[in-house]
Amino acid sequence: EFEVAWDASAAEKGGWSSFMAKEISEEPDAIANTLLGRVHDGTVSLSELDPLGADTLAGIERIIVIACGTAAYAGMLGAYAIEKWARVPVDVQLSHEFRYREPVIGDRTLVVSISQSGETMDTLMAVKYAREAGARTLSICNTQGATIPRESDAVLYTHAGPEVAVASTKAFVAQVTALYLLGLQLASIRGSLSPELIAEQVAELAAVPAKLSEVLQSGETISQLARWMADTRSVLFLGRHVGYPVALEGALKLKELAYIHAEGFAAGELKHGPIALIEPGQIVFVVVPSPRDPLSLHPKVVSNIQEIRARGARVIAIAEEGDAAVLPYADEVIRIPLAAPLFEPLLSVVPLHIFGMELAAAKGLDVDQPRNLAKSVTVE
Amino acid sequence: EFEVAWDASAAEKGGWSSFMAKEISEEPDAIANTLLGRVHDGTVSLSELDPLGADTLAGIERIIVIACGTAAYAGMLGAYAIEKWARVPVDVQLSHEFRYREPVIGDRTLVVSISQSGETMDTLMAVKYAREAGARTLSICNTQGATIPRESDAVLYTHAGPEVAVASTKAFVAQVTALYLLGLQLASIRGSLSPELIAEQVAELAAVPAKLSEVLQSGETISQLARWMADTRSVLFLGRHVGYPVALEGALKLKELAYIHAEGFAAGELKHGPIALIEPGQIVFVVVPSPRDPLSLHPKVVSNIQEIRARGARVIAIAEEGDAAVLPYADEVIRIPLAAPLFEPLLSVVPLHIFGMELAAAKGLDVDQPRNLAKSVTVE
Repeated sequence: EFEVAWDASAAEKGGWSSFMAKEISEEPDAIANTLLGRVHDGTVSLSELDPLGADTLAGIERIIVIACGTAAYAGMLGAYAIEKWARVPVDVQLSHEFRYREPVIGDRTLVVSISQSGETMDTLMAVKYAREAGARTLSICNTQGATIPRESDAVLYTHAGPEVAVASTKAFVAQVTALYLLGLQLASIRGSLSPELIAEQVAELAAVPAKLSEVLQSGETISQLARWMADTRSVLFLGRHVGYPVALEGALKLKELAYIHAEGFAAGELKHGPIALIEPGQIVFVVVPSPRDPLSLHPKVVSNIQEIRARGARVIAIAEEGDAAVLPYADEVIRIPLAAPLFEPLLSVVPLHIFGMELAAAKGLDVDQPRNLAKSVTVE
Repeated sequence: EFEVAWDASAAEKGGWSSFMAKEISEEPDAIANTLLGRVHDGTVSLSELDPLGADTLAGIERIIVIACGTAAYAGMLGAYAIEKWARVPVDVQLSHEFRYREPVIGDRTLVVSISQSGETMDTLMAVKYAREAGARTLSICNTQGATIPRESDAVLYTHAGPEVAVASTKAFVAQVTALYLLGLQLASIRGSLSPELIAEQVAELAAVPAKLSEVLQSGETISQLARWMADTRSVLFLGRHVGYPVALEGALKLKELAYIHAEGFAAGELKHGPIALIEPGQIVFVVVPSPRDPLSLHPKVVSNIQEIRARGARVIAIAEEGDAAVLPYADEVIRIPLAAPLFEPLLSVVPLHIFGMELAAAKGLDVDQPRNLAKSVTVE
């Protein structure tokens, strides 16, 4: 007798070693597809927002983003962009905390929920609470026909394609893209950014997928780094401004995939406590802002790197191509292409996705189905 | 020749083994002294707010709390109370992140800064930024004549007395007390709470010092727990609602004092990632809300405890006296006296202060002067 071994899931994975490896390779497409049909000649046009009404959107006084886990970090990135572009205060709250704090909301509050599956129970309950309290609701979701979009006034779909691995990767960058589009559309409606500045941001966004494909080329370097670190017990991540949510996301991926105690910090917090943790050999990833950054955060982050290096930390810097200032202090440098500050996270987060996956693989763990976790948390 | 050994610092410590031990013992007084002269017959009267003007305070549309480290966790607790009582949205931001996000602020924004020393450079810079952007500024500070109060429109002093140990303890509970007083004063000005409800909260607040003295009696049990755990490499902390900042504070103290990888989570986040970390023997502190809690969070937290116990976690619960529901699942229970939900954190945080100090002592570390840290961070 003769049998041909046929692994259906291998076929679905299209030759990749895991769904996560496939999905990380699709991150550029997740962004490109989420932009498709929504940007034209330097303008943004989101007809999906029509049910909310341009007048309502022009009069919004506060945005609350509700989400859990990785989606909440996407929300934090969206908050920086929307505040800057549309000049509306944006607050990010964990869905399961939101309604218990008796939030102050009304009909000039826009509650934006983010859920890949559109079925996250905590987020669904928060959306219902917000609607009953009179808020306008917008859902950012990756799954057609899901429950949360149906319970919302409007929905902005991400087009990342089906995400099978439990830990989110391509859905994350698609969520950030959707939030940035929302920010630009609001800026246009509210007149807070000139058409020229909107066109500049649209061009930056449209350029991300090709830059991200470049980043994916450095995958082998990161894999090697992960293999060297297979016995690491703890990793810290530092970032500032939009690098802070990237640090949080890098740490969450290590927790989820490699079961390592990993924590992300705003680099400015170091001196207020966490620097006590630094001892010789402690591995620290640092998301370095561009030296061209108009906020001048680059020298502050380089100074943070010097401080932790002086205490023996082993530093892996994620830095822009050509940034030579980090070289004397970093043990390893992962390079990302040049981008304006708000768009750097879409590039710098992907090496951290790869690192999490490769470290889990080096430890012999199942990267697609980590222990204790479900893809969609449909219970409270 | 004959010498009398004289340890000046031991005298200053008044017989305590460390400044921190002395300062933890002073937590009830820090609260009582911060209330002194500010509450009368069930009302709150903060003449310190006069420079801001009652009309201005009545018209405030948004409060942003800026702080770093422990003070930011005090700010989170204040946010829950102020939103609930005064019905103003409150956002807590790290001082060193605040101005880089180009926050949306105007003359109807009240920026409340919190700094024990009043000299925290990041917070000072944030206050100056807020003033220049047109916001009204209030400083919460423990040190007379400090710089941040001078740069603010008004100052509400905490009366915790001098804090010498680098890691903050009594200043934290005094900051929470000051924020609660602010919330009640705003509620009174804005008419968002009836005089009867204000009187109820004042009575709860006034009752905290005596309850806290009871909590301090359980110090020896916590010391023993810490000695058993002297070789522990990682500890997690879980809480919901006002228990979440308590979890963050418990984790920060362990980082600062015992150099242990400790992280605090909103318990609802567990299923969205961190539960992957739970393996047999992992120590988890859980701040359990009262079973009398009208938000009905108690069964949700008990369910979280069951989930992590099923995966082998060793659970130390901080729970209200008489709460029997946690007994079947907790390896240890630390009891706190009954209090209304918003006031529980002032009781539950203190066992975590004691635990951090005792674990550091059991490891032979200097609890008053942890490595790498300064009492007041006067550089950016």
